Amino acid sequence: MSIRYWEDFNPGDTFEFGPRLVTREEIIEFASEFDPQPFHLEDEAANKSMLGGLAASGWHVCCIVMKMASDAYLLESSFIGAPGVEEVRWVAPLRAGASVTVRATVHDKRVSRSRPEMGFLKVSHDLIDADGKTIMTLSVNPMFGLRNPGAPS
Amino acid sequence: MSIRYWEDFNPGDTFEFGPRLVTREEIIEFASEFDPQPFHLEDEAANKSMLGGLAASGWHVCCIVMKMASDAYLLESSFIGAPGVEEVRWVAPLRAGASVTVRATVHDKRVSRSRPEMGFLKVSHDLIDADGKTIMTLSVNPMFGLRNPGAPS
Repeated sequence: MSIRYWEDFNPGDTFEFGPRLVTREEIIEFASEFDPQPFHLEDEAANKSMLGGLAASGWHVCCIVMKMASDAYLLESSFIGAPGVEEVRWVAPLRAGASVTVRATVHDKRVSRSRPEMGFLKVSHDLIDADGKTIMTLSVNPMFGLRNPGAPS
Repeated sequence: MSIRYWEDFNPGDTFEFGPRLVTREEIIEFASEFDPQPFHLEDEAANKSMLGGLAASGWHVCCIVMKMASDAYLLESSFIGAPGVEEVRWVAPLRAGASVTVRATVHDKRVSRSRPEMGFLKVSHDLIDADGKTIMTLSVNPMFGLRNPGAPS
């Protein structure tokens, strides 16, 4: 297993990972614990809601992307964490039975000024269903350790 | 139980809800499922990480705020959902044993142009520990149904 460091990511890089099948059971389980709005729990309420049918909590969709990114590359990297979330857009409902894929794109990178042993990336993630429809876009600025801090770039 | 509608929220309104005790077990359970970085799962890795000890996944912190807000007021309102997340800042680690409170502030409101039966709020949430230290700030634009669509304001 080769570890990926900050130096190994560059603007323009793209990754695609998945697919992951989303089940009705996990949608309801997540919503029960963290986002118990009726339109995430019950068909009747969901059918009458803006979602037009049962759909996953938007926070659940974020968490699914985080797990997919962890398995695809973060756990085999020098990933340190992130200072926050830049933006999330819940574009379309995530339904039970959907098979979803993530397309991640590196947009920018910089070494930390205060901690030169680490650097930031700017990464967008598009969660896409099997028909190519975008479910969510998520932008974050994750931090990674450098392989060679202080080396000339 | 009286339902709160869009008209019942106004810029300057503040809500405080909680406290909620965060346990080591839920931190590890959430991280195992959605954010399995070693610094969210194991003391030794966490002690060596930037977090300086075991701390909750930032996504878990978001989900805890969503659940607290649901219980405090969303489930007794005309809440419809949100188009996304405006910004999240993970300011300080959320540790096991912390007792956390949310301070929510309404900053702005407007009726939807395309769907006059609903309106948006702009709400910030500060998650604060028992010492008053900010753990996270979270800004969202939730949508609520109007009690009286089309009424003069």
